[in-house]
Amino acid sequence: MTRRILVLPGDGIGPEITAQATRVLEACQTLGLDAEIEQGLVGGSAYDAHGVPLPDETLDKARSADAILLGAVGGPKWDRIEDLSKRPEKGLLGLRKELGLFGNLRPAILYPQLAEASTLKPEVVSGLDIMIVRELTGGIYFGQPRGIEERDGQRVGFNTYVYSESEIERIGRVAFEMARKRNGKLCSVDKANVLEVTILWREVMDRLAAEYPDVELSHMYVDNAAMQLVRAPRQFDVVVTGNMFGDILSDAAAMLTGSIGMLPSASLNERGQGMYEPCHGSAPDIAGQNLANPLATILSVAMMLRYSLDEADLAARIEAAVGKVLDDGLRTADIASEGKRRVSTSEMGDAVLAAL
Amino acid sequence: MTRRILVLPGDGIGPEITAQATRVLEACQTLGLDAEIEQGLVGGSAYDAHGVPLPDETLDKARSADAILLGAVGGPKWDRIEDLSKRPEKGLLGLRKELGLFGNLRPAILYPQLAEASTLKPEVVSGLDIMIVRELTGGIYFGQPRGIEERDGQRVGFNTYVYSESEIERIGRVAFEMARKRNGKLCSVDKANVLEVTILWREVMDRLAAEYPDVELSHMYVDNAAMQLVRAPRQFDVVVTGNMFGDILSDAAAMLTGSIGMLPSASLNERGQGMYEPCHGSAPDIAGQNLANPLATILSVAMMLRYSLDEADLAARIEAAVGKVLDDGLRTADIASEGKRRVSTSEMGDAVLAAL
Ligand SMILES: CC(C)[C@H](C(=O)O)[C@@H](O)C(=O)O
Ligand SMILES: CC(C)[C@H](C(=O)O)[C@@H](O)C(=O)O
Repeated sequence: MTRRILVLPGDGIGPEITAQATRVLEACQTLGLDAEIEQGLVGGSAYDAHGVPLPDETLDKARSADAILLGAVGGPKWDRIEDLSKRPEKGLLGLRKELGLFGNLRPAILYPQLAEASTLKPEVVSGLDIMIVRELTGGIYFGQPRGIEERDGQRVGFNTYVYSESEIERIGRVAFEMARKRNGKLCSVDKANVLEVTILWREVMDRLAAEYPDVELSHMYVDNAAMQLVRAPRQFDVVVTGNMFGDILSDAAAMLTGSIGMLPSASLNERGQGMYEPCHGSAPDIAGQNLANPLATILSVAMMLRYSLDEADLAARIEAAVGKVLDDGLRTADIASEGKRRVSTSEMGDAVLAAL
Repeated sequence: MTRRILVLPGDGIGPEITAQATRVLEACQTLGLDAEIEQGLVGGSAYDAHGVPLPDETLDKARSADAILLGAVGGPKWDRIEDLSKRPEKGLLGLRKELGLFGNLRPAILYPQLAEASTLKPEVVSGLDIMIVRELTGGIYFGQPRGIEERDGQRVGFNTYVYSESEIERIGRVAFEMARKRNGKLCSVDKANVLEVTILWREVMDRLAAEYPDVELSHMYVDNAAMQLVRAPRQFDVVVTGNMFGDILSDAAAMLTGSIGMLPSASLNERGQGMYEPCHGSAPDIAGQNLANPLATILSVAMMLRYSLDEADLAARIEAAVGKVLDDGLRTADIASEGKRRVSTSEMGDAVLAAL
């Protein structure tokens, strides 16, 4: 059966990096992947063309796709849009919500070839391999009521941090299954000493733990987790947390590797449909200059093949190809170091294709 | 006029570290500080004695004190108390709220003598000196409604993240004043691309900036801030943010120094009354063993003298004394390193007193 892949380049460096990733997808077609590839607009570029960050046409295409590859959205050009619902970010949030992509997998892996890039000492980070499982369609990102209104003669801003048992259980299962496939260790992050919503979170995780006796569950407060990521990051294997804490901790964890240009991510719904994107942003400062690192996006293609398209072999081939170009000493600007060969976005794409 | 200082040892290592800090306070009395020192119960130890983490007697004493020195609260012994309002943490939160201690100052300073202790490379952190200004009596910590209730046949947990203009303005002024006294640089951290409450936050900060033309204000999203703290922490000088983000970021920033046992903090209200406490927690694992580092608590005394008791000279003397014992190579277990002299909690106290 022919699979449908939707590529959404987005803004900033998005078009350049998805262009290279699309070449990799096309190479996979010649290697046996039965898939159609189409494109769509999202984010600021969609706003410029249609006045909204998530046009109906894009949403329709996304709904019927088996998998989506997203570049990145946003940039200073759109930061002054007053109406929050028109901002590029809402294109991304809308896709997550409309497709029910509740399960966000964010690996933070230190590539041995890039160990130097970390700001942390090698003895603290070498071999780092954390998987952060972030809930992506609930919590304070989507909670109601929300807004800014006048109360007692002054304006007040408010948002609601809310989770139901079933939402917690659903993401909990993703995390327990992931822990089972990895080291059997799961750390759930909350602020149960202060927030009721995370008391419920902790309770549901504890209840699930009984169903996964092979997984060792621990709990950690979010402030301590932020600290422990800096102090001794290798104590973590799989981490599960809500939308907001996951946003913060996954970025901190990614940066521990020093090469955020290397990190892919996956966002999955209950049917295994998924959106795949690099962990980094749209980097407007270097957009259009053929400087960006396309490897996180190319590795997102590998995640797509593994999680949504059931093509683990092709995924492994891509990952091996990326490993090879790193071994060969090719580096884009963000991961450049002395004695290595500086290459452009497209040259890096060429090299991965050759290695494939 | 005789000032009143209330010492609240709290739980875990609290009693040991405040004992050393109290000796330093007593030494200040002989050096001219006109103050009475009394003690009170808070946290788990108050719960054990009176069934509540913040007895009325403690609150009354706190209200009439010019300054409070707190050790730390909490521990596994009380983690199973079902009723959140009885947990040790609520003693701390109650004091903050009842006394209106909205302005939390959390320095993250890398002591040159302890540069090795950081998990980050020296070229990234040497000379680090960040001041995080955290709002402490509002935001999601205290927002209503909150709770866990049944909705549509399942339980739902919820909390409210709320700030009014006046609350934001008040903490904003503390931060702008602080930036003015330091490098004239202020970074406000929010999530204004997603949360309405922080859109208002950003607006108010922008408005205040007009009143402080000598301060350069920048804005950063919280996920990026967590990342930038790991990537290039010295880009920050004064950071201002809400209660929850401040909790997370200040702990991450503290850990960058590698010696959280060295970091004091201050929580101030509008009248300059303040509560002073180390950034670290109650460390139940080493409680009662004369192993804990008392320096963060002793440095909290210095902050107290500077911010609440108008005794900047005495504050500077204490800080110099701490510098001297570090120069002399004395180290408690948490900051131990080869070639340095390992000392106990009380020996460290002795050394600071001698240096004073
Ligand atoms: C762009 C923004 C809305 C988004 C988020 O906060 O989820 C991003 O930071 C991310 O982590 O994917
Ligand atoms: C103990 C806890 C309630 C407290 C907080 O979250 O504020 C602590 O983490 C802190 O930062 O002082």
